[in-house]
Amino acid sequence: MARAPAATRTRALEAIARELRARVATILDANRTDLVGAEQRGLAPAMIDRLRLDEPRVEAIARAVEEIAAQPELVGRIERAETRSDGLALARMRIPLGVIAIVYEARPNGTVDAAALCLKAGTACILRGGAEAFAANRALGAAVAAGLAAAGLPPAAVTMVPSTDRDAIRALVQLDDLIDLCIPRGGEGLIRFVAEHARVPVIKHYKGVCHLYVHAAADVEMALDLAENGKVSRPGVCNAVETILVDRAVAPAFVPRLAARFAELGVEIRGDAEVGRLGGPAIAAATDDDWAAEYLALIVAVRVVDGLDQALAHIERWGSDHTESIVTADPDAAERFLRECGSSTVMHNASTRFADGGQLGLGAEIGISTTRLHAYGPMGAEGLTTTKFIVRGTGHVRT
Amino acid sequence: MARAPAATRTRALEAIARELRARVATILDANRTDLVGAEQRGLAPAMIDRLRLDEPRVEAIARAVEEIAAQPELVGRIERAETRSDGLALARMRIPLGVIAIVYEARPNGTVDAAALCLKAGTACILRGGAEAFAANRALGAAVAAGLAAAGLPPAAVTMVPSTDRDAIRALVQLDDLIDLCIPRGGEGLIRFVAEHARVPVIKHYKGVCHLYVHAAADVEMALDLAENGKVSRPGVCNAVETILVDRAVAPAFVPRLAARFAELGVEIRGDAEVGRLGGPAIAAATDDDWAAEYLALIVAVRVVDGLDQALAHIERWGSDHTESIVTADPDAAERFLRECGSSTVMHNASTRFADGGQLGLGAEIGISTTRLHAYGPMGAEGLTTTKFIVRGTGHVRT
Repeated sequence: MARAPAATRTRALEAIARELRARVATILDANRTDLVGAEQRGLAPAMIDRLRLDEPRVEAIARAVEEIAAQPELVGRIERAETRSDGLALARMRIPLGVIAIVYEARPNGTVDAAALCLKAGTACILRGGAEAFAANRALGAAVAAGLAAAGLPPAAVTMVPSTDRDAIRALVQLDDLIDLCIPRGGEGLIRFVAEHARVPVIKHYKGVCHLYVHAAADVEMALDLAENGKVSRPGVCNAVETILVDRAVAPAFVPRLAARFAELGVEIRGDAEVGRLGGPAIAAATDDDWAAEYLALIVAVRVVDGLDQALAHIERWGSDHTESIVTADPDAAERFLRECGSSTVMHNASTRFADGGQLGLGAEIGISTTRLHAYGPMGAEGLTTTKFIVRGTGHVRT
Repeated sequence: MARAPAATRTRALEAIARELRARVATILDANRTDLVGAEQRGLAPAMIDRLRLDEPRVEAIARAVEEIAAQPELVGRIERAETRSDGLALARMRIPLGVIAIVYEARPNGTVDAAALCLKAGTACILRGGAEAFAANRALGAAVAAGLAAAGLPPAAVTMVPSTDRDAIRALVQLDDLIDLCIPRGGEGLIRFVAEHARVPVIKHYKGVCHLYVHAAADVEMALDLAENGKVSRPGVCNAVETILVDRAVAPAFVPRLAARFAELGVEIRGDAEVGRLGGPAIAAATDDDWAAEYLALIVAVRVVDGLDQALAHIERWGSDHTESIVTADPDAAERFLRECGSSTVMHNASTRFADGGQLGLGAEIGISTTRLHAYGPMGAEGLTTTKFIVRGTGHVRT
């Protein structure tokens, strides 16, 4: 795969997009089988939402593959070329990382995103989807295999593990002579299982406890809109807002309106004493468990803070290094927040829901890293590559 | 450290360089104590060479610190800024990796290089040098501490572990809640010990089995010079040439002259049958152990190959992903070698001895990675940083 020409890999990506569109009925049939099974097993509504495909979602998956195909080629790209004063020419050349194992749950789009990003990066991949999405993953995997074959690439370049039990994952993540990196995506249980058994390097994030921080100088209308978008637009995903921090100065203007808006939207608020006082009797009392919670549901924790320092300290203590956003009209406060908050994605006056590889220009994401080694934040095709040093001389020796 | 202004960290680096120069007599005294101990314990000559300091080497260490100080600031650097069509502004901001543990043997310059690169990167570090260099490391560590204090930074930002036994290393590399990365530098035994016991991520290279490949279209004079420089200029280091591959077409012109030159230089050649035939009776017969050997001594393995493909296959089988160099006047062969050889540094018509962070423009190196995750090849200050995503909106919500 590393030596397959860029044009061949691009042809394969375009063929995969075509195959997805041609097979949409089959894919949705398979997805319905999965959804029936999920309902029978009593999966949480947020999980079922992640699982669900429809025509627009399949079209979005196909379009994401085309966007990845259209991105500039990565493999063999020369970076940072410079020539020393003695004429020795230095550069770096971008190369694939190797063989990637991706272990994921629900989200059948994971199958295609992963395959497409690995193809773009010139790496082979081994995909192990969840039992919940077994039928859809098979249908999507068949589309990928057909696309690879159409471009003359070996279908084994994207290998689907047919087993859905955890022993298969355990065996997979111990193959450190064959696999260069494992990326688990899913619930905290899955990720801890992988981290615990892996002998291969793992890039992971356990959870997304994303904060919206309503600074004293916030535009209250904007803050309400960002709170609603962050919490309600898709509560089951990791970039949804889980905690809202509100500066004491703006709390009287913001909290009552938030309480009214969220009551209408069916969002439960769990607040500290001040939020309870300002928000009315419907506010439940928050405990430390709420500050740590990734609800993935229509629940939000709200806390009043005494300014930027306390907000940063709260995020450092309770956050998950995923995504935090400040709402403020004060450029200095925004700048300090962007610089000092250590999370992998930090925003100003924008919805945390943008923390996603597709939205942040990566075409699609293979995962999100909340640890700083190799990748931090959403990770696209480039995260599946590295660089080697290239040196060109004319007989240069070191004296 | 992450929030210390760039100017403060630069002042500390400049003060460290001054302290090193002011303390050169003390440092060399301490080094002499170490050298006497090393000779008493019968350390190999190559190891003693790594250990040895003299005035020019201390001056070189001080100058490397100044070079690092003069490099552009990394922390807070904005990269890849772009604005989406909807006005949402995306960028990445470079940030420190965290707390780095560095475990190293011999080479007392490791103490200062590591401290300086971590300072540049805004990370704190914990340094654990080898027993062989205990006295020199203490003297160098005192210079570093004095430099930090002069700039008003806490001396604990560079913490030296005072123990030289392996239990201290074991305890250190298990502190995964405190340490973000461990970089071991030294012999294969040390590195395997760290890799085996680590709970923190480890960036490592086990050995440097570097190849010089004399292609059919090589300039024989140049090839001889690169062979000599690669093998003889400093045989005890990891970028020294360990194996020379020679195309069959050029072997009759190259091998006898190499044998003569290396006989004069006191280098033992271990060759395959063809090399033995061309090089004369002084050539010992090579075994598979020789293809795998990192001699770190005046010994070299030499093998005749049937062209580029066989050379690449030999390197893939026996190499260590460190550094390989092709000697050729044929630009297509050079291009193929540069592209297809998967090692972390790949060269054309240049000595493998350039594979070093200082030589490759990194100021100094904190280590060399021969695994592809996070860093591949020599690793400088930038390797001790990562980036976070920065998003600036004007109330953008995701629809």
